[in-house]
Amino acid sequence: MTTTTTLARHTRPKPTSHIPDRSIYERRESVVRSYARTMPRQFSRADNVWMYDNQGGRYLDFLSGCSTLNYGHNHPALKQALIDYISTDGITHGLDLHTDAKAEFLETFESLILKSRGLDYRVMFTGPTGTNAVEAAIKLARKVTGRGLVIAFTNGFHGMTLGALACTGNAAKRTGAGVPLSHVSHEPYDGYHGPDLDTAALLERRLSDPSSGLDAPAAILVETVQGEGGLNTASPDWLRAIADIAKRHGALLIVDDIQAGCGRTGPFFSFEGMGFTPDIVTMAKSLSGMGLPFALTLFRPELDQWLPGEHNGTFRGNNHAFITATASLRNFWKDDEFEQDVQRKGRLLARRLDAIASGFGLSTRGRGMMRGIDVGSGETADAITSACFAAGLIIETSGAHDEIVKVLAPLIIDDAALSAGLDIIEESVRAVRTGSYGIAAE
Amino acid sequence: MTTTTTLARHTRPKPTSHIPDRSIYERRESVVRSYARTMPRQFSRADNVWMYDNQGGRYLDFLSGCSTLNYGHNHPALKQALIDYISTDGITHGLDLHTDAKAEFLETFESLILKSRGLDYRVMFTGPTGTNAVEAAIKLARKVTGRGLVIAFTNGFHGMTLGALACTGNAAKRTGAGVPLSHVSHEPYDGYHGPDLDTAALLERRLSDPSSGLDAPAAILVETVQGEGGLNTASPDWLRAIADIAKRHGALLIVDDIQAGCGRTGPFFSFEGMGFTPDIVTMAKSLSGMGLPFALTLFRPELDQWLPGEHNGTFRGNNHAFITATASLRNFWKDDEFEQDVQRKGRLLARRLDAIASGFGLSTRGRGMMRGIDVGSGETADAITSACFAAGLIIETSGAHDEIVKVLAPLIIDDAALSAGLDIIEESVRAVRTGSYGIAAE
Amino acid sequence: MTTTTTLARHTRPKPTSHIPDRSIYERRESVVRSYARTMPRQFSRADNVWMYDNQGGRYLDFLSGCSTLNYGHNHPALKQALIDYISTDGITHGLDLHTDAKAEFLETFESLILKSRGLDYRVMFTGPTGTNAVEAAIKLARKVTGRGLVIAFTNGFHGMTLGALACTGNAAKRTGAGVPLSHVSHEPYDGYHGPDLDTAALLERRLSDPSSGLDAPAAILVETVQGEGGLNTASPDWLRAIADIAKRHGALLIVDDIQAGCGRTGPFFSFEGMGFTPDIVTMAKSLSGMGLPFALTLFRPELDQWLPGEHNGTFRGNNHAFITATASLRNFWKDDEFEQDVQRKGRLLARRLDAIASGFGLSTRGRGMMRGIDVGSGETADAITSACFAAGLIIETSGAHDEIVKVLAPLIIDDAALSAGLDIIEESVRAVRTGSYGIAAE
Amino acid sequence: MTTTTTLARHTRPKPTSHIPDRSIYERRESVVRSYARTMPRQFSRADNVWMYDNQGGRYLDFLSGCSTLNYGHNHPALKQALIDYISTDGITHGLDLHTDAKAEFLETFESLILKSRGLDYRVMFTGPTGTNAVEAAIKLARKVTGRGLVIAFTNGFHGMTLGALACTGNAAKRTGAGVPLSHVSHEPYDGYHGPDLDTAALLERRLSDPSSGLDAPAAILVETVQGEGGLNTASPDWLRAIADIAKRHGALLIVDDIQAGCGRTGPFFSFEGMGFTPDIVTMAKSLSGMGLPFALTLFRPELDQWLPGEHNGTFRGNNHAFITATASLRNFWKDDEFEQDVQRKGRLLARRLDAIASGFGLSTRGRGMMRGIDVGSGETADAITSACFAAGLIIETSGAHDEIVKVLAPLIIDDAALSAGLDIIEESVRAVRTGSYGIAAE
Repeated sequence: MTTTTTLARHTRPKPTSHIPDRSIYERRESVVRSYARTMPRQFSRADNVWMYDNQGGRYLDFLSGCSTLNYGHNHPALKQALIDYISTDGITHGLDLHTDAKAEFLETFESLILKSRGLDYRVMFTGPTGTNAVEAAIKLARKVTGRGLVIAFTNGFHGMTLGALACTGNAAKRTGAGVPLSHVSHEPYDGYHGPDLDTAALLERRLSDPSSGLDAPAAILVETVQGEGGLNTASPDWLRAIADIAKRHGALLIVDDIQAGCGRTGPFFSFEGMGFTPDIVTMAKSLSGMGLPFALTLFRPELDQWLPGEHNGTFRGNNHAFITATASLRNFWKDDEFEQDVQRKGRLLARRLDAIASGFGLSTRGRGMMRGIDVGSGETADAITSACFAAGLIIETSGAHDEIVKVLAPLIIDDAALSAGLDIIEESVRAVRTGSYGIAAE
Repeated sequence: MTTTTTLARHTRPKPTSHIPDRSIYERRESVVRSYARTMPRQFSRADNVWMYDNQGGRYLDFLSGCSTLNYGHNHPALKQALIDYISTDGITHGLDLHTDAKAEFLETFESLILKSRGLDYRVMFTGPTGTNAVEAAIKLARKVTGRGLVIAFTNGFHGMTLGALACTGNAAKRTGAGVPLSHVSHEPYDGYHGPDLDTAALLERRLSDPSSGLDAPAAILVETVQGEGGLNTASPDWLRAIADIAKRHGALLIVDDIQAGCGRTGPFFSFEGMGFTPDIVTMAKSLSGMGLPFALTLFRPELDQWLPGEHNGTFRGNNHAFITATASLRNFWKDDEFEQDVQRKGRLLARRLDAIASGFGLSTRGRGMMRGIDVGSGETADAITSACFAAGLIIETSGAHDEIVKVLAPLIIDDAALSAGLDIIEESVRAVRTGSYGIAAE
Repeated sequence: MTTTTTLARHTRPKPTSHIPDRSIYERRESVVRSYARTMPRQFSRADNVWMYDNQGGRYLDFLSGCSTLNYGHNHPALKQALIDYISTDGITHGLDLHTDAKAEFLETFESLILKSRGLDYRVMFTGPTGTNAVEAAIKLARKVTGRGLVIAFTNGFHGMTLGALACTGNAAKRTGAGVPLSHVSHEPYDGYHGPDLDTAALLERRLSDPSSGLDAPAAILVETVQGEGGLNTASPDWLRAIADIAKRHGALLIVDDIQAGCGRTGPFFSFEGMGFTPDIVTMAKSLSGMGLPFALTLFRPELDQWLPGEHNGTFRGNNHAFITATASLRNFWKDDEFEQDVQRKGRLLARRLDAIASGFGLSTRGRGMMRGIDVGSGETADAITSACFAAGLIIETSGAHDEIVKVLAPLIIDDAALSAGLDIIEESVRAVRTGSYGIAAE
Repeated sequence: MTTTTTLARHTRPKPTSHIPDRSIYERRESVVRSYARTMPRQFSRADNVWMYDNQGGRYLDFLSGCSTLNYGHNHPALKQALIDYISTDGITHGLDLHTDAKAEFLETFESLILKSRGLDYRVMFTGPTGTNAVEAAIKLARKVTGRGLVIAFTNGFHGMTLGALACTGNAAKRTGAGVPLSHVSHEPYDGYHGPDLDTAALLERRLSDPSSGLDAPAAILVETVQGEGGLNTASPDWLRAIADIAKRHGALLIVDDIQAGCGRTGPFFSFEGMGFTPDIVTMAKSLSGMGLPFALTLFRPELDQWLPGEHNGTFRGNNHAFITATASLRNFWKDDEFEQDVQRKGRLLARRLDAIASGFGLSTRGRGMMRGIDVGSGETADAITSACFAAGLIIETSGAHDEIVKVLAPLIIDDAALSAGLDIIEESVRAVRTGSYGIAAE
């Protein structure tokens, strides 16, 4: 595996010389930090699929900011557009005032994304975090329906603020709330009880039963692929059934496309071509294209029943993000070339992961360029990602027990780099499974 | 008033030629937008204290992104630092990985802000919105104390996500939740029941009474000046009393310094010199210096009891904001010159506003460079700000009934521009009070 | 069917002469009344299995106060004991003071109920309503475990006060709360998703998954037979599985035996002989034996962690009920004769109902002397019970759609009367199914 | 004080011979028991104002089941009516079916209570506990107004089930809930912040302020005298102000008359003659006259918007209580003689308590026959009630710190017995204050 070797040669510095002076972090940064623990380097710059630390180490990025960097780090076109904007004193911050940057974004989003897909959504600029977009979505659903309950799913992940956290399945995150999380019921996701049990039918049964104790919901909130929850995928059939259930019971269907959207599974919206249209869609992560904070809540025009300022926020018009988002739409979504290429690489990724997994009796999960291997336990997965990191690959885990090694490579990755990263994964899985690589400790 | 005249001459374009093609907003942007309604222009660029629309209009900015642009628009030093960083492929997005930009920010914040003030806080990079910083603060207080109730105050404003919204007093915002807002009790702020009633004593009485029905609180969450709630100011005596109450009853004192911090009232933290130290502080708005999304939650090291990733978020390490924030600290907070100048301008502002107010039998509110005139009703205030806008001044209202005309000029404003803006306010108040300017409609 | 004829002859007065002057009810009694609507008579007296109205009508009682009158109306032994007690100025009301009547009840309950069954429970005298016993049970479980969530089941019915109502499945009842019902998750009961799906396994799966969104529960609250929910029965296997789940996940198992207890299914406790012991048991309804308000919460001694008066109530020591309860225990539970006879009659009832049901292609439900026929719709069931009432039989419906005709005859009923009542049911089912009896209206 | 001596001689048995065999309580009764701890006797019978233990001890009852026995123990007329009813097989239990007993109660309540007072209320038979009546009241208010928040008051006591408990101020009781108590705000009662601060004005200020954080309430729930909370009395002026506030803000006024009603303060309803009419009234305690479980919720006919059975309960038609309640109305409320006598005795009680209090520099509280002495601490109050019990007087404490020695003598007490009991109190206060009687331990 020469590519791996080459990669490793360039990226793997001597461990002893490599550890940054971390005292400032230990003195001043809250212990809530997480990724910095398993990847204890200080990073200086990044481009395309590469990150560079301050000791000369180079890393291939298969994490992509948890799908925030679908177009890679500092894409030249986006970067230039932003520098030009800043250089000419473009509006940086203007609350929700109209700006040239906002107008251009809206027009580009309308023409390149909505029109060609036959979608008619209003765009709400929420606070520029995914959790804020989710909070806005469930607020709107509750307001429009006059109901309080939101149905979310096992292993769903929707954010850390109180409303979105209630929709999140992870017990460790939930406990952090310090108060009971209310007004949400977590139902089994597609396949949760095995391939033979139709969990949509279970839900329909209870919603149809006036004595089930499950109140009539304002919304059903679903991810088409559960990015944090373990790369579980919902089938189009199941999603259509959920969409039907929502409609039948007067609830709004919210697709949280924060991690799976922006091409991660191939199309711009992860639900395209599945035969249903969500009432509300939340977007964030790769929306700005370059990693800048940006989030949107989209909804059918009839649902646009907000009062002015009813949900507001200081940074709801991040003009820098408008600029890079517009550039990313123009660069990648003006036709279907990019989507086709992502689909192709997704198949390539699937084949390689399947091959690696089957070699060790493991299974794979996911869709498009959002796939992983279930290695059985969080301990094993940590050892594997640690081995990968030592070999110059940034990669993380996912799932209820962190048991999924998750590949979230930039979508713009070329085949050679993708292959090189997969080689490292394969070697790392082998090393851990054969016992030649132990469990990493920070 | 030649300055005003001059200002108006340059900025006030013919109304008919001035209205942008707003169809894209009406087609695609949610009706939740607010500021864009009362200031129906499309803005193109901005520098220092000025904003420019796409029709050649120039506006003096007395809104400053609701105190997000304390150092003005696109400050040259900050702008250059950011362009340099982007040009050299500095890390844009890295989740919470260590980066050069983060290290520099932490070191600068430690040396220029914390050390010189004798403060020992851990820094938590929350999602880059104020509401997220507040959610993190109350989560932490609940976690550390094992209690659920948060005490907030009348007219307090803390954000729009469910946990922060419960702490917010505004009924219109609260109703947007669609579910009951729980686990928070809203107590009367300093002066709420008039100057003779000590509302801290009222609170102490109930917290000391095991039969009052007011549960033992996890936290008391307070603004030193209520930016959205009407520029009500809490006296140092009252704040110390609240701090004592918190300590005596085992609650944590959280100062929400999102609007009043970063020099808006003079010192970096609005509570400096008041004889108490908050357990937790939330910051956002002007923290990045240039208007980029950025928020922090600060707390005593003993409170840093988070589990890794217990409160996380995609954009919690906005490296662009680290760069501009560091530059802003170095430019404005390396000594006390800036603070002294803000104090001086604050006194100037106070004198002018008092003079305007007393001329019309009105009263003023606020502290430092965060002051306003109570014009008696939201209708009157809207008419005044509308008249101001027509004369080239961007300014907004505040208060339970939007009855306060609020001056939030950039702190770096020079005396001439400040004076020119105040002249416009004076003329506008006169015009509205004398009936020569009617109520504006969008 | 001579018995029926005989019964009818004696009981069915002329309708026109029979309707009481109901103006006082219409003027003064809240429209919340329910049974009085479908049985619009004014009743004067009752004995054994019979009720008599004020027009000379006699009715066979197959409702038994929803299982409150297991020993029939005004049983001579109970009645005499109560008269004797009142005549000698026995304590009527003494809050929770020790009284002779309470001591006798406790000693009798210990010797006749607990000891012989090998059960070691502490007895808590809650407010004398079932809902209060349930509130006490879930309070205690939350207190002991330090957790908030209670798991209840589809179609469960546990009471109307806010805590118990949250555990109740019925949507019409739930809506009455006027606030969201929190801290309870309703899981599918045994057989809810058909005979082939093990709903205990579904629950186990989600409780074992740290990312399911189902928080660790304080308690699992279950009825062995769902009296109000449609006479659904849980199998001993399923109940043991639920008991195991509770133990494994640190939750307390609460059996709500308010309707199924006191011999209704045969044994004193409905869970006897099933191979598990609940941590907490709630009792009410037939506990006093004579229909007097009385409720208990029983729990393992280790769980008796209440502070004095932590859950109190004015009527928590209803001494009249102690007297009749003691007499009922002595009369019916000193040996197993009564239980055996109930079992025998239960089988008789099952055979007759099965025969009736199979004649019309219907199915039956229930256990012991708590059985019914699923007639397919609430409309049909109402017509049947209306026909029964016209023939002199008091009987009610149950189930999510009120589609179950429910037989809750007094346990002391003799075979002839039981048979006579069943004859009326059979005739009524036939009359309604063949269209010779229409749907009743009040 | 010969009366006291005489009383004591008859009632005070030798301590050693007096303690009952309490092993059954310790083995089987939950430790939640409270009164039985401070009055460790086993009581056998009772009549008029006297209770008798099983060792021959006699006690004067100044507790009256916390105002449940306003007409004394086992009043001959009530007792006879009940025996007659039972002897003739009157309906004991009939759910909410119409019965002769219910009709008679409704007619008597209408003619003797409602009509003569010009009140037009519908009568709702809730579950027979005060807490259930409160739950029904707040449910109805929430249903009718479509709002969730209930305003209750400091030191208010309304019951132990989850909805009523949220309205209760006592922290020890509240903690028992095990979950946060929501949807209620506790405001300062009349005089809570001293005589000079109008707490109704404080409430009005916040309800009128759209930014106070106090949501628009469904109901204001108030006691005219706080029985458990320390015998605090609300003035008619304050109550009228509260009634006005409720009306002005679209909330329903609920008077919880469970402890203060049925003549305890003189008139049948404690709010009579105060110039306002509650929308909803809750009653229990002395309603049955004899101590039987019975509770009502009364409301204006326009509010009677319940669906049939929307709030139900097994024991909501306690016919024995109908019988004794009817008898009590006929005996005591057919004219104003009883009320006048209670007023007279109330004044007598006030004079004696004032004299005792002033002798020791203490103060008194209360209204009518519901008065007490504030002895400064719960420890002192416990010592005093313990000394009283040793002298043959049953009496309890009240207040946030149990610092009020509370006199709740039966209203039918004759002057000699009242005087004798007050003598014991005086002696006991003196003994404790002079140190000749120590603090009692169970």
